Amino acid sequence: MFNREVKDTQYKRGETIFLPGDPSDAVYFVKMGRVKLSHRDKSGKSVTIRVCEPGEPFGEMAAMGEESRSLQATALDDVWLCWVGRERFVRFAETHPQITLRIAKLIGLHRRELENRLEEMLFLDVPTRLARTLVKLADQHGREVEGGVQLRIRITHRELGDLIGATRETTTATMNRFQRDGIVGRERGKLLIAAPERLQELAKG
Amino acid sequence: MFNREVKDTQYKRGETIFLPGDPSDAVYFVKMGRVKLSHRDKSGKSVTIRVCEPGEPFGEMAAMGEESRSLQATALDDVWLCWVGRERFVRFAETHPQITLRIAKLIGLHRRELENRLEEMLFLDVPTRLARTLVKLADQHGREVEGGVQLRIRITHRELGDLIGATRETTTATMNRFQRDGIVGRERGKLLIAAPERLQELAKG
Repeated sequence: MFNREVKDTQYKRGETIFLPGDPSDAVYFVKMGRVKLSHRDKSGKSVTIRVCEPGEPFGEMAAMGEESRSLQATALDDVWLCWVGRERFVRFAETHPQITLRIAKLIGLHRRELENRLEEMLFLDVPTRLARTLVKLADQHGREVEGGVQLRIRITHRELGDLIGATRETTTATMNRFQRDGIVGRERGKLLIAAPERLQELAKG
Repeated sequence: MFNREVKDTQYKRGETIFLPGDPSDAVYFVKMGRVKLSHRDKSGKSVTIRVCEPGEPFGEMAAMGEESRSLQATALDDVWLCWVGRERFVRFAETHPQITLRIAKLIGLHRRELENRLEEMLFLDVPTRLARTLVKLADQHGREVEGGVQLRIRITHRELGDLIGATRETTTATMNRFQRDGIVGRERGKLLIAAPERLQELAKG
């Protein structure tokens, strides 16, 4: 849509794309891989706000007058991004009001997701939150294999913990319990949901 | 701006304006009083997502293609609202793209507030969350009186609990502790912040 104004860029898994306080000078789109947006407090504790999948924009508040980033963006895989400079994006949106409407809808969707997560954090215990997150990951990134559903992505216990608002230790203990109960397992280093129906049941809380 | 298309309506303190699942057929603006937007789970537990003050819109996702309400809207005071039907609002926004941009900015601001609250819920204890909320309320609704800062609005312990994600019982216990420590008090039925500096200190966590 912008042709020459769209730039490509790549990051390795684990690399930082921007940090809180960096100038909000571009809108990004994920072409390949996943990008984690997170909050980190002074003591280093971190919570994942959202994981952006291919096709999704991030940093879009740059186009809404935001001066500096409020979140950290980190490559969860080797990622391929494209980006448009803030001024160019704003000029484009001025003549294409549908773009602003689409972004407003997307931000509204994220807002609703956060409302739901806030409710989950308050009212659901860790095993239920973990089960819900695993169900969601299996929907997005699972493939059916012999013995269950295997996640195509790598995810650490710390990353799972940041998604559900639990420490790495609590997450590991809960995953171990799920494993002892035969609900999850490992298959060639990747997470296997061995009993998807029982996980669904746990996710109901 | 819409003249004859803008309708007025009033609700008494405690009345429901809309419920989750109701059709999203209008965008509202608060003219007087405050409106609480909340989530309620099946067991009746509730969390306040946002309190809308005079001048603020709510239910604006109606203009972004939302079919039905996801939150409950309740009058926190006797309120005076005006509202515009969804179709009329969308037609107006199509010829006034700045409206969509302003709403997108507002939704983005709410999203950021929710991100911060999610972090607070995860990393801060109840006394710190309560202190932060009281500081915010004093900023928005306080007036200096002899002996401290008095809140002009009425707020119950349950309402405070819903704001910070704590039960009514825990909130009351924490407020009692603040009262014993001489940080808060009651003055003619309204909450008095007797030691604003100490409250600020507690809010740092």
